[in-house]
Amino acid sequence: RSGEMAKLTQLIDNEVFWAYATYTTIVLLKMMLMSPITAYFRITRKAFANPEDTASLGKGESAKKFLRTDPDVERVRRGHLNDLENIVPFLGIGLLYALCGPELSTALLHFRIFTGARILHTFAYLIPLPQPSRGLSWAVGYAVTISMAYQVLKMALYL
Amino acid sequence: RSGEMAKLTQLIDNEVFWAYATYTTIVLLKMMLMSPITAYFRITRKAFANPEDTASLGKGESAKKFLRTDPDVERVRRGHLNDLENIVPFLGIGLLYALCGPELSTALLHFRIFTGARILHTFAYLIPLPQPSRGLSWAVGYAVTISMAYQVLKMALYL
Amino acid sequence: RSGEMAKLTQLIDNEVFWAYATYTTIVLLKMMLMSPITAYFRITRKAFANPEDTASLGKGESAKKFLRTDPDVERVRRGHLNDLENIVPFLGIGLLYALCGPELSTALLHFRIFTGARILHTFAYLIPLPQPSRGLSWAVGYAVTISMAYQVLKMALYL
Repeated sequence: RSGEMAKLTQLIDNEVFWAYATYTTIVLLKMMLMSPITAYFRITRKAFANPEDTASLGKGESAKKFLRTDPDVERVRRGHLNDLENIVPFLGIGLLYALCGPELSTALLHFRIFTGARILHTFAYLIPLPQPSRGLSWAVGYAVTISMAYQVLKMALYL
Repeated sequence: RSGEMAKLTQLIDNEVFWAYATYTTIVLLKMMLMSPITAYFRITRKAFANPEDTASLGKGESAKKFLRTDPDVERVRRGHLNDLENIVPFLGIGLLYALCGPELSTALLHFRIFTGARILHTFAYLIPLPQPSRGLSWAVGYAVTISMAYQVLKMALYL
Repeated sequence: RSGEMAKLTQLIDNEVFWAYATYTTIVLLKMMLMSPITAYFRITRKAFANPEDTASLGKGESAKKFLRTDPDVERVRRGHLNDLENIVPFLGIGLLYALCGPELSTALLHFRIFTGARILHTFAYLIPLPQPSRGLSWAVGYAVTISMAYQVLKMALYL
């Protein structure tokens, strides 16, 4: 029983879990930043998706011309979607990895590289930096997630 | 050891966690509702994205005209994507917040306001209500998530 | 106190949780596969979304013609978005369901059917198979998630 308790303690009440909590919160906040950035470009470029959003810009036909796509708005939206596609796997696989009881230093390395790669990816997408900046920063985050998934499957595999 | 156990008990086996479970399930079910609503508009507006989906509506050229976008379908899809963009951060940050051991009443306030705001957001998007209904309901859910993220970082910060 | 501990043990240190970990990791890896598949079609079809991605294909106007949408690329992207829309609810509701202490055999049935349905859905979308293959595989995964949500709400309901 005390063995099981030690196991539980190891699983949750440990530094790896709180490291996961810190980096996951940071990377989710970064993803959330894409929403106000989209709004900023929609307003400055006057490019909206919904008729009700253009009501304050004029009536009837004069407002209709603001229902359009804009390259800058679409760029932020692609960055946001890419965040969702990559941060959702990190959220799930990272939690399971943290509960597998990895070494703190190894776990921190994974979380820090992933977070850094996703921040770089956003700069590479929005500035934009020439390729392969965006491709590489995407690939680094992807590889970190695969590495954590491998650890989880090695420990948890239960088919 | 009994101190650690109390800590574990505080972390998981408590009402805040089950409050999180309840509201997260509700808000995820709400998000899932967007799929049948999209299907409903695709079928009634006869606006499909895939050739194989129009096979029952006719052959060759006569089916091709149903491969088109429709404003009502696109509206539901934008609402669905906005749900993903906002409910994914709530899912992750909310879980970490619940494990930080907040006061039950404070936690319930966060979860209830977020869930209410996202339900209002869906009505504001689909009816649609005049702005700033949709903008405000989005902002309220966003602010609740930021507030929980602040609590998590204050407690967990481990860089 | 030992009752609480047994409860905690039941909650986390059990086979259901590791079954969840295994299938969630598999289904998230499957979703991640959509990114390289998108890249493969973008490169072979020469259809890109960002000007900086076409720089290696030529200069000025000759590169601009590769900034276009392609039906095969859009098909993979729709499959990827459908994964996000369905795997995010599974991630959240599945975790809460696993912590509700269901029977191992019942839980495995849920996780296996969901994972199988999402793999079938990807094949049905990408080959593509005639309908209702894709519709049915979507519906099976959806129903499994609803069934788990019902179990969570029955056990956790805390409004």
